[in-house]
Amino acid sequence: MRTVDLIEKKRNGGQLTQQEIEWLIKGYTNDQIPDYQMSAFMMAVYFQDMTDEEITAMTLAMAHSGEVIDLSSIDGIKVDKHSTGGVGDTTTLILAPLVASVGVPVAKMSGRGLGYTGGTLDKLEAIPGFKIEVPEAEFIRLVNENQVAVIGQSGNLAPADKKLYALRDVTATVSSIPLIASSIMSKKIAAGADAIVLDVTTGEGAFMKNPEDARRLAKTMVRIGKLAKRQTMAVISDMSQPLGEAIGNSLEVVEAIETLQGNGPADLIEMCYVLGSQMVVLANKADSLEEARQLLEEALQSGRAFEKFKTMIASQGGDVSYIEAPEKLLTAQYEIPVLAKESGVVTKLVANELGIAAMMLGAGRRTKDDAIDYAVGLKLHKKIGDHVEAGEALVTIYSNTSNVAEVTALIEQNIEIGATVVEPPLIHEMITE
Amino acid sequence: MRTVDLIEKKRNGGQLTQQEIEWLIKGYTNDQIPDYQMSAFMMAVYFQDMTDEEITAMTLAMAHSGEVIDLSSIDGIKVDKHSTGGVGDTTTLILAPLVASVGVPVAKMSGRGLGYTGGTLDKLEAIPGFKIEVPEAEFIRLVNENQVAVIGQSGNLAPADKKLYALRDVTATVSSIPLIASSIMSKKIAAGADAIVLDVTTGEGAFMKNPEDARRLAKTMVRIGKLAKRQTMAVISDMSQPLGEAIGNSLEVVEAIETLQGNGPADLIEMCYVLGSQMVVLANKADSLEEARQLLEEALQSGRAFEKFKTMIASQGGDVSYIEAPEKLLTAQYEIPVLAKESGVVTKLVANELGIAAMMLGAGRRTKDDAIDYAVGLKLHKKIGDHVEAGEALVTIYSNTSNVAEVTALIEQNIEIGATVVEPPLIHEMITE
Repeated sequence: MRTVDLIEKKRNGGQLTQQEIEWLIKGYTNDQIPDYQMSAFMMAVYFQDMTDEEITAMTLAMAHSGEVIDLSSIDGIKVDKHSTGGVGDTTTLILAPLVASVGVPVAKMSGRGLGYTGGTLDKLEAIPGFKIEVPEAEFIRLVNENQVAVIGQSGNLAPADKKLYALRDVTATVSSIPLIASSIMSKKIAAGADAIVLDVTTGEGAFMKNPEDARRLAKTMVRIGKLAKRQTMAVISDMSQPLGEAIGNSLEVVEAIETLQGNGPADLIEMCYVLGSQMVVLANKADSLEEARQLLEEALQSGRAFEKFKTMIASQGGDVSYIEAPEKLLTAQYEIPVLAKESGVVTKLVANELGIAAMMLGAGRRTKDDAIDYAVGLKLHKKIGDHVEAGEALVTIYSNTSNVAEVTALIEQNIEIGATVVEPPLIHEMITE
Repeated sequence: MRTVDLIEKKRNGGQLTQQEIEWLIKGYTNDQIPDYQMSAFMMAVYFQDMTDEEITAMTLAMAHSGEVIDLSSIDGIKVDKHSTGGVGDTTTLILAPLVASVGVPVAKMSGRGLGYTGGTLDKLEAIPGFKIEVPEAEFIRLVNENQVAVIGQSGNLAPADKKLYALRDVTATVSSIPLIASSIMSKKIAAGADAIVLDVTTGEGAFMKNPEDARRLAKTMVRIGKLAKRQTMAVISDMSQPLGEAIGNSLEVVEAIETLQGNGPADLIEMCYVLGSQMVVLANKADSLEEARQLLEEALQSGRAFEKFKTMIASQGGDVSYIEAPEKLLTAQYEIPVLAKESGVVTKLVANELGIAAMMLGAGRRTKDDAIDYAVGLKLHKKIGDHVEAGEALVTIYSNTSNVAEVTALIEQNIEIGATVVEPPLIHEMITE
């Protein structure tokens, strides 16, 4: 087999065989196929797309390019959840203890990643003492004991994806549905998932700006999940405005705690119920979404979900006094309000631009070597559709510098106040096939 | 400027500015832009094409990536000729002395390249003593004295093209019109051409299999030639059967000598008149193609063109006794005829397969390190439309091994004899704008 012939085949719109795709991914992982051939191949994929069979072969080849976590010693169906990313997305911190508290085993490996705020791992590390590096045997013991553990990804999980992603990032081949789908699904499969719930976000704050692209990506992942024998479903959710009210690491931990205590923002808790119900059904812990939701609502209202969160934090070394008194996490030097200049209804709250404002404060990473400031970020007091009076606070900036002129200007440019607005839906669609 | 942004711009169908293209080519030549970004860029060009302005900017940036030969100390308009390649194409050996003999200065730098037989340089080196490595000052002196010199390309001519071509070859981005056009034109401009005559071949034996692709390539090169202020025209010629009767290095030298002596195959001499007339007109040595052709016919018939060829060979160290007795060049150990199995008219003579047969004998290179056997090749006794009797020789194989079963089989498979045929045209079209 010659790489150039496979590039040409794809360039001409042909379909590669499973054997050809395995050969490509293996050769690339082993440094036998050079970057310059792989980047040309990926650009050809960008233009010529891939069939479901090709994407599935690629996903499995990438999943098996390194270690594949064996979760078989954990009883039950292990359901993983993945979000394609958003602004102020705190769901994992809530969902993990919530579904664990109704008996769904949650053995979650999370990433850091680049973005407006940190990843789930960064948020957890905002809690003093919490450790994310846990050996595999200990990880499995924790899940068997507590039903839940959230740890950092092992070094050798889907190395083909790591290498490919770095290459795509510098060759303008990130935004290709087959490449995005195989990247996400290969990591979930390598991390040992039996079933997968996907949250595919769409809107200004998401990678997929329009619902049609999000739909295509969701459908592709659901189909390849099935071909790879993992039960998979996807929720297409809206990210035109941030989810919940907090954007920033400690701020989102506090929001997660409030939500688990029953005092969370309506959109955030609803999203958790929607995703959580799907996870509970896929794990065979309920026969219907309605039944699953009842179980989750009961676990939240009774305080069992919050107890499970405290157990999870404590068992991974976190200082639970911060969970019991979350205001201790809010250590930013300055809290500066951004005030409404006119009265009316909030008509626009541009998610990605507010994310950038949080990143400018230090909440996120531009490059993988950037340090994160856990304390900083934004708290939204108004969401789209809310009424506001001139002079009322729209947002509070949590900052460790008093010079927030640039951040304030960016926020002001991205909140619009008008007369009326049609509120965006929280969920656009459920994709099950 | 960031390379990834330029890749994305082209991927999205955008038009790059002159400055952006210069930055890319310069960065790539200087090893500041890695191969993996350039290959992704080229695949994006394959799908999104380039405007004439972009191709012109790329051509000029590549031409100026290394040394640009200054031919200004040679009097007159320096016209270069380039063929996109064929089988049995001996035109340069004939055209160089032919047009020089009517006063057109020919300062030609030629290549070796890969192919069915060697390049012009290899053919010239089949003449004992002929040297192709000539310092630039000596090269110019020779042209001023004799009106003609054909030498090897200097090491640093269009290094960007050399590097890009090697990359395209292994990334399935060779067959892209803007990339082919800029590659050819950049080398001609770097070699100092004031005006350019292009022979764009089409048919089984050519890179462009169909006339529409050949036409697109020709039109592109003519337009960018004009934008780059080099008078340029193109002839689209047929390469469904080989040109002339000889395929092989020494065999083609002998054929060139016979043609310059007035005894060449009709198609080969006609092609030389067509291309030569264009060169003479572009060099301002005649007012019309008719007048140019009369001058060339007179130069050939009077023997002046052949004398010019001898002068050229002698002044570059070649042993002229071989030119005067060309049968001395035919040193292959075996001359084996391939006989017609039936009577009829030759209806097919598949150029590229006959080229491969010659390469199998040792006439061409598969990789740049292969050695060439000057003596071997094929001599065609029949062309399409010729009548043949069963048992008559169709082809003579010149070989240095007696085992030619495989070559014979390939030849037999690629010559068809039938009842009637429409002869292919020699010239499909002239492209002047």
